[in-house]
This record gives sequence, structure tokens and C-alpha cells, in this order.
Amino acid sequence: MIFLPEIQEIIKSNIKKISWSSTLAKGLYEPIDYVMSLGGKRIRPSLLLMSADAFGANPKDFVNQALAIEMFHNFTLLHDDVMDNAPVRRGKPTVHVKWGENSAILSGDAMLVKSYELLADGMPADKLPQVLALFSRTAREVCEGQQLDMEFESSNDVTEQEYLEMIRLKTAVLLAASLKIGAMLAGADDDKAGSIYDFGINVGLAFQLMDDLLDVYGDPATFGKQVGGDIKERKKTFLLINAYAKADASQRQRLDALLAEDDVDVKAVTDIYNEIDVKSMCESKMNEYLSKGLDALSKTGLGERTKQLEELACGLMNRKV
Amino acid sequence: MIFLPEIQEIIKSNIKKISWSSTLAKGLYEPIDYVMSLGGKRIRPSLLLMSADAFGANPKDFVNQALAIEMFHNFTLLHDDVMDNAPVRRGKPTVHVKWGENSAILSGDAMLVKSYELLADGMPADKLPQVLALFSRTAREVCEGQQLDMEFESSNDVTEQEYLEMIRLKTAVLLAASLKIGAMLAGADDDKAGSIYDFGINVGLAFQLMDDLLDVYGDPATFGKQVGGDIKERKKTFLLINAYAKADASQRQRLDALLAEDDVDVKAVTDIYNEIDVKSMCESKMNEYLSKGLDALSKTGLGERTKQLEELACGLMNRKV
Repeated sequence: MIFLPEIQEIIKSNIKKISWSSTLAKGLYEPIDYVMSLGGKRIRPSLLLMSADAFGANPKDFVNQALAIEMFHNFTLLHDDVMDNAPVRRGKPTVHVKWGENSAILSGDAMLVKSYELLADGMPADKLPQVLALFSRTAREVCEGQQLDMEFESSNDVTEQEYLEMIRLKTAVLLAASLKIGAMLAGADDDKAGSIYDFGINVGLAFQLMDDLLDVYGDPATFGKQVGGDIKERKKTFLLINAYAKADASQRQRLDALLAEDDVDVKAVTDIYNEIDVKSMCESKMNEYLSKGLDALSKTGLGERTKQLEELACGLMNRKV
Repeated sequence: MIFLPEIQEIIKSNIKKISWSSTLAKGLYEPIDYVMSLGGKRIRPSLLLMSADAFGANPKDFVNQALAIEMFHNFTLLHDDVMDNAPVRRGKPTVHVKWGENSAILSGDAMLVKSYELLADGMPADKLPQVLALFSRTAREVCEGQQLDMEFESSNDVTEQEYLEMIRLKTAVLLAASLKIGAMLAGADDDKAGSIYDFGINVGLAFQLMDDLLDVYGDPATFGKQVGGDIKERKKTFLLINAYAKADASQRQRLDALLAEDDVDVKAVTDIYNEIDVKSMCESKMNEYLSKGLDALSKTGLGERTKQLEELACGLMNRKV
């Protein structure tokens, strides 16, 4: 059994060792090293290694596969930042700000390719076809999630169901695939690998709902992002979609008026959220997913070996609300 | 033995059959279907299937792998067009013009993922690790080539050697990998697969030099692009690099002055090219690569079975100069 701090240390030290053989095209790789060094919680590669560990493998055998997931995740952040025109990521200037948009596009492309190289590097040949298929399917689903996220920006009739499908694709499937790949590498049978995937999907959905909640109700001191950012951007979160769905005529009119203003009044929108109590709705949905996830986890039959994963999942939801 | 027209027909009809399972994220796939339907000569997938055929396999067994190469190639065109801000591709509006830049980035990402899915689809498991490694290495080299191409735009001391390395990466390696993957799939030994790769590299380099020549000396009626386009863009082609390298002080001064003007005088630059006779230099370099390529091809020992590949290579160079 290996514990999270050690896993994170392994990931961190091996990210530093990722190397590029090209001397001529250094300009392609500099932004990648920059992005990969910015840190973050490294949750996805940790999940892969913790899952492999729980299923009885030596996680140190699958460090490259964990790095593949982290490389892929950072590729999506890099291209998303271009699409969103985001100036800052993890407190530092984004790649397109620092090196220009073309660099951000092209270095992102190279990251996606590198994630496949890391995935295949050292993988047992008999595992490769299935793991590769899951990785690619997941990668394409993440693109679909980003597509829906962009489309929803200009849509005014996003349903709760569509929203949940979007966050499943954009966020949950990669967490789930990280766990399942760890299980597959450790030789888990299909049922158990499926259960840990379901755990990941449900925790991923809960995690995103938590993010929606924190945006409005988070403690500014610990949240890290600007409180009310989603509201200011008129983002169709679980809260806004349900506020509209449950609003009476007058509340709907007030919401319309508030969101039509150039600078959205976060406090006034939050007041309407509170009147309708979308916070409780979101919390209960989040808790529903969390317990579904823990149910799925218990179906792996691994008992104490999944304790760490359970704690990590609960820990993710326990950020102060 | 299967002939090029039939191969191209197989590719064309199978491109039409590429399908996407998502109903919600149709917006992600529409630009991909558009790009893939625009046509083109489908040289790369044809090379893969012709190579598999020459090495004794049934090319129809490897259609997905050929489509993977075509999907990848079109992904590079799509992202290159964003980076170059190109309005037109194959006579039609580019994706970023039609759907916006974000769509072009994201649909391109999905194409890269899909190319991996096609590559793995139906591939014999014992071939997968090696083919996958070659595909990824090549994909990353193409990114390196594009990186160098962009960097050379703002550099004034690109050498002939650096230029040749750039076009090797940007153009030749994918042609070579297409051929080699066909050989690997057909079970060719490493030496022969290496020879067909070398054939591809050399023909690819010759092909790009031909393109440089045609830009200046091509017949406007058959060239398809605007004659002198590279000169207008001050592109560091083989011709321009060598014109500078061989120019005397006065010619260099005239070149500098001509390229400093807002609208570059194509005729005047061509006159200097003619004085220095860079055309002959380029032709002899091109012929050198072509014959190196044909040498490598003969080393496969396949005799008549490579006749078609030889004809295709020579055909590519035989466009009217």
C-alpha cells in the first residue's frame, strides 16, 4: 500500500524528467514544460496510481501511464484557455499570453501526441489495445464536453439533464478513465474495472457540482478563484439552470434583467438563488452522486484497499461551503 | 496487385463511412466531415495501402489505418490554416472562417484523437506497439516541422540545412511513415521497412523542392495556386535561401530592397533568381533526392511490385515546370 503524499511525490519528480529529444524545435517544448511545471493537485494521475495500487499492482510500474493522463489533462487546459481567452492559469500567465496563440495551439497538439507516447511507454502489450481504446474514447468525450460547454454559452434553453451530460463529458469521464486504466493495468476483471469507472463518474459529477456551489457560496479566503465568477459570466451552471427552472414569473423577470446588465450584480443574483434555494438542490444532487459513487466503489470488493480513494473523494467534497 | 485508381476509390468510399456516435455534440463533428469531404489527392493513405500491397498483404485489411493517416494529415491542415489565418483550402472556406476559430481548434483536436482510434481499429495486436510508436513519433515530428516553419518566418539566417530539416519534419516524415506502416502491417522485416521509409523521406524532400520550384516557375494554368505566392510572403524557400547564399553584394542589396517593399515585385525577384540560377540548384537537389529515393526503393528487393510506387514518385515530380 502506497499513500497519497508519496504518490504525488512520484508524479512530481517524474514530470520533471519528461524530456524531448529535439534540439532544433525547442520552441515547441518550452511552453509544454512551463505548463507541466505549474503544479496543480495532480488528482488524475494520483487516481490512476491509487487505483492500480488498490487492485494489487505496484504503482511504480505505471508512472508513465499516470503522466499520460496528466499530460492529456494539461493539454485540454491549454487549448481551453485559448478558446476562453483566459489570461491566467494557476496564478501565472497562460501560454497564449506568453508565447502567442499559434504556439499555444501547436504545443497543445504536441502534448496530445506526447500523452499517447507516455501511455504506450512501458505498457504490457496485452493491455495496450483496451487501454488505448478507453483513452481515445475518453479524449474524444472530453472534446465533446468542451464543445457542449461552448455551445451552451449562446443557448438559453439548456436543461439540467443536458448540463449534467456536459459535465460528465468535460470533467467526469477523465477521472473515471484514470481510475479504470489503473485497474486495467493491475489486471482487474471487467466488472470491477467498471465499478471503479462508475465511482469516478459519480465523484466527477459531484466534484463539478461542488465547484458550481463554491463559485457562489465558497469562502473567498480559501476558494482561490473570484467568488461569483460564473454569475458574472452568465455561465449556465446547475444553480442558474435550476433557478430559471423553478423561478416564478417575477423572479424570472428579475433574473433576466440582472443578467442583461453589462456588469452582472452578483449579490442580487445570489439573493434570487437564495429565495429559490437552489443551493439545497445542488447540495442534495451532489450528495446523491457522492453516495452513488461510494456504492460503486464498494462493489469492487476491495474493502480497506479503497479507503484512500474514498477519503480522497470525500475530501474533494469537503472544501468549505 | 491492386492499382491506384481502385485504392483511391476504396479510400474515398470509406471516408464517407466514418461515423460518430454522439448525437449531442454534432457541432464537433460537422467541421470534421466537411474537411474530410473536401477531397485532395489522398496520397498518404494511398501510399500506405500500396506499400502493404507491395509487401504482399491485402490492402483492404488495412483501410482504417490508411484513414488514420488521412485524418491526421487533415488535422494538421486544419490547425495550420488557423495558425496561418488562411481563408481558403481546396477552393472552399476554411473551418475557422466557416465555424470560428474555437471550432477549428477543438474539432482539430478531435481529429487527432480519431486518427489514433482509426489506427488501432482492427490492427493485429502484435503490430500495435510498434506502429503506434512510429505514428506518434511522426505526429510529433510534424508538429516540430510546423514549429520551425513558423520560427523561420521571423528569422533572417535560415540555412539550407535547417530548411531541409524543416521540410523533412513537416512533409517528408508523414509520407515515409505512411509507407513504413503499410510495410509493417504486411509483416516486412525491419531492413525492408527501413528502406521504404527512406524512399518516402527522399521523395518527400524532392516533392517539397518541386513545390518551391512550381511556386515560381510553374505553369499558372496547371499549378492551382497563385504563382509567386511564396515570394510575396517572403517565404524562406530553398530558392530564396540559396539566392541569398550565392548573391553578390549588389544582388543582395537589390533582394533586400525588393523584399522590404509592402507589395513584393515577383518578377524582379524572379529575375535575380534567374541571374543566380537557383532554379538549376533546386532542380539538381530535387533530382538527387529522387534518385536516392528510388535507390532506397530498389533495396526492398520487391522488384516489379514497387513499380507503382516508383511511377507515383516520378509522377509527383513530373508536374510541368
